[in-house]
Amino acid sequence: MKMINSSCSRHPEISAFFFHMNEIPEFHDTPVFPKGFQCASRNVGLKPSARDLTLFVSDVDAAAAAVFTRNHFPGAPIIVGRETIKGGVLRAIVANSKVSNVATGLAGVENARRMARAAAAEVGTSADKVLVSSTGVIGVPLPIEKIERGVVGMTGDLQANPMVGAEGIMTTDTHPKALSISVGPATITWVAKGSGMIEPNMATMLAYIFTDAAFDAPTLDRLLRQAVGSSFNTLSVDTDTSTSDTCAILANGLAGAVDERAFAKALRAGCVRMTEILARDGEGATRLIRVHVRGALDAREAHVIAKSIVNSPLVKTMVHGADPNVGRLLMAIGKCFTCTIDPTTTDAWINGFQVVRGGERLSFDDAVVRDTLSRDVVDLDVEMGVGDGEAQAYGCDLTKGYIEENAAYYSS
Amino acid sequence: MKMINSSCSRHPEISAFFFHMNEIPEFHDTPVFPKGFQCASRNVGLKPSARDLTLFVSDVDAAAAAVFTRNHFPGAPIIVGRETIKGGVLRAIVANSKVSNVATGLAGVENARRMARAAAAEVGTSADKVLVSSTGVIGVPLPIEKIERGVVGMTGDLQANPMVGAEGIMTTDTHPKALSISVGPATITWVAKGSGMIEPNMATMLAYIFTDAAFDAPTLDRLLRQAVGSSFNTLSVDTDTSTSDTCAILANGLAGAVDERAFAKALRAGCVRMTEILARDGEGATRLIRVHVRGALDAREAHVIAKSIVNSPLVKTMVHGADPNVGRLLMAIGKCFTCTIDPTTTDAWINGFQVVRGGERLSFDDAVVRDTLSRDVVDLDVEMGVGDGEAQAYGCDLTKGYIEENAAYYSS
Repeated sequence: MKMINSSCSRHPEISAFFFHMNEIPEFHDTPVFPKGFQCASRNVGLKPSARDLTLFVSDVDAAAAAVFTRNHFPGAPIIVGRETIKGGVLRAIVANSKVSNVATGLAGVENARRMARAAAAEVGTSADKVLVSSTGVIGVPLPIEKIERGVVGMTGDLQANPMVGAEGIMTTDTHPKALSISVGPATITWVAKGSGMIEPNMATMLAYIFTDAAFDAPTLDRLLRQAVGSSFNTLSVDTDTSTSDTCAILANGLAGAVDERAFAKALRAGCVRMTEILARDGEGATRLIRVHVRGALDAREAHVIAKSIVNSPLVKTMVHGADPNVGRLLMAIGKCFTCTIDPTTTDAWINGFQVVRGGERLSFDDAVVRDTLSRDVVDLDVEMGVGDGEAQAYGCDLTKGYIEENAAYYSS
Repeated sequence: MKMINSSCSRHPEISAFFFHMNEIPEFHDTPVFPKGFQCASRNVGLKPSARDLTLFVSDVDAAAAAVFTRNHFPGAPIIVGRETIKGGVLRAIVANSKVSNVATGLAGVENARRMARAAAAEVGTSADKVLVSSTGVIGVPLPIEKIERGVVGMTGDLQANPMVGAEGIMTTDTHPKALSISVGPATITWVAKGSGMIEPNMATMLAYIFTDAAFDAPTLDRLLRQAVGSSFNTLSVDTDTSTSDTCAILANGLAGAVDERAFAKALRAGCVRMTEILARDGEGATRLIRVHVRGALDAREAHVIAKSIVNSPLVKTMVHGADPNVGRLLMAIGKCFTCTIDPTTTDAWINGFQVVRGGERLSFDDAVVRDTLSRDVVDLDVEMGVGDGEAQAYGCDLTKGYIEENAAYYSS
């Protein structure tokens, strides 16, 4: 893995945790596309003036894989996307924001197909090589005519700047999200959106990964699932699993073969980094919360405990208020009824400062813990002392901003 | 079941739902104690000036049963209480607020025992007939000396008004909570507190039930578990399960034998009513949310779906903002990955107004749904169409008030 400069995110320090300071991947200062990928986005009238339609295009057919939400009410683009991805080949992704085309019945599915056909005609490919995504309000008919009219001529706007596409797919995100990294001769680029309704069970809201490395579709599928399992699937903003979650990877091969292990490592690093960025920009969030559970009975129990902590409203509000009410950590661990938990071997740390030993709250200087809880990134570490299961989870604090955004999301 | 007058809660209409309008139990206008029960509460210095120590006493030994939290980090009073209740006999309950005596180790357990001994000495009974409860911040040592000094002379304050005890056990509750009802010659009285850290898995925060009906301890235990299963265990304010949950019933027999079926019915009615009152007074809550799921594969799946809806932050904020973003109902149902869900047979109603049919959002007049979502009580009804499983769940909206109370609970 070739390292170029340092990070490009708002929070350059945040990957240090996951990689334990000994191997921090270096993302490009300014995200770039791999060879042969471009994008364009514009306003086609779904939003008052912001960009609402986005097109990602590869110059040549790309091997592709994708994972989708496990929500029982998948959006029409998910239903169509599951068919499309079976072909293992993509030339383009077309995505609109503002309206998610979910709970819209057969008419919604037909609209998703029309959107694929319109983008295919513009790009000069067939509809079965175009992945469709829609994100926004559930249960509102997709304004398909605006999209069909709006996509015409978009190939004329294509440019090699992934931030343009990242901006086009935003909903309540406060900033566009893209990352890129070099792996040997190749590049991997991530473009994603997140914010609310985020506890992905296969992938997060919308995350697209582009590479010019050469891999076939089954290999990409395997690498993607591995990377997603320890990144996007450990993320929770609010416990609510979107009906539109999509994570797709496209490999157009223009950079030729790349060492698979190096590629897998870089892929995972970028997925983890993007997970942190999505968590930190959760709706209303002011802090990133990273939970690391060790010593659980097994990895599954570690995952359950880590998710319980990162999802606890009382832990999230404690972090938000920088209030050292550390007993809430024990409460959140203790409510994992199906897990093996021994209070006498349970320890906990906040940003490296031990606050619980053997299930008992240690006496500590409130001001010190308050100070550490006030940081932009709060690491909650737990040692269960009953096995060697380990897991991470990523989330954010719970704030009045979350209430504000979600008490009038449909109406605004 | 003898009906006396109407309700005594702040929200007299709210039981109508559960009993489907055809059999609304009539609680006393002003809650009273059964024969032979009294209580007292006072400030002993745990809080600046509010009542913080409460004593409930029966004139004679009472048969007793109790259920406790399943949290793996039970408070010291739970550890001691589980031993105490094995005896099946109680004369008194002593409860303090402000400090929960949780995560305090062996010293905490010894403090709970000292608290029982001090109350027993005051009442003139043995410590194994005194149930101890503590509620408040986790991980802070119990100021046992203040309690030991403070309990002296409390029997002189005993009075037959359950509201005095209800006030004494409050933490973030905005009002004291007590109910009573007549069953034949006997009375049943509920005194409870709730507010936050509430997704009981055996009982809610603190709920005491007193009766002068004559039942033995094993019968009480069975009746209590039945009643709790369809009431307190269907409640969730914030998905967080308290380390102090306790629900105890005391039957001193002074009113003699009572028909068991009538008693069980009244017991369940009061537990459901108290569940509604606790939900409506959840931290920061402005609305009571009642979810009723029918037609699920079985009762267990109905329970999972009902809890998923009542716990969804996006459903809770939608109700708070009276924002008719009804697709969130489908999202919350659809994320029950282990349940049998057929989108084509899924229907949903808000306060009787159908908003989803066959998994699709119906087109409706926004103003009408907005209006119905603005009510003090919001009923969300779901028909799954795949079986005959049925369940209720009780919760509240998610508001800025919840954030405010919990971002500085420890410090304030």
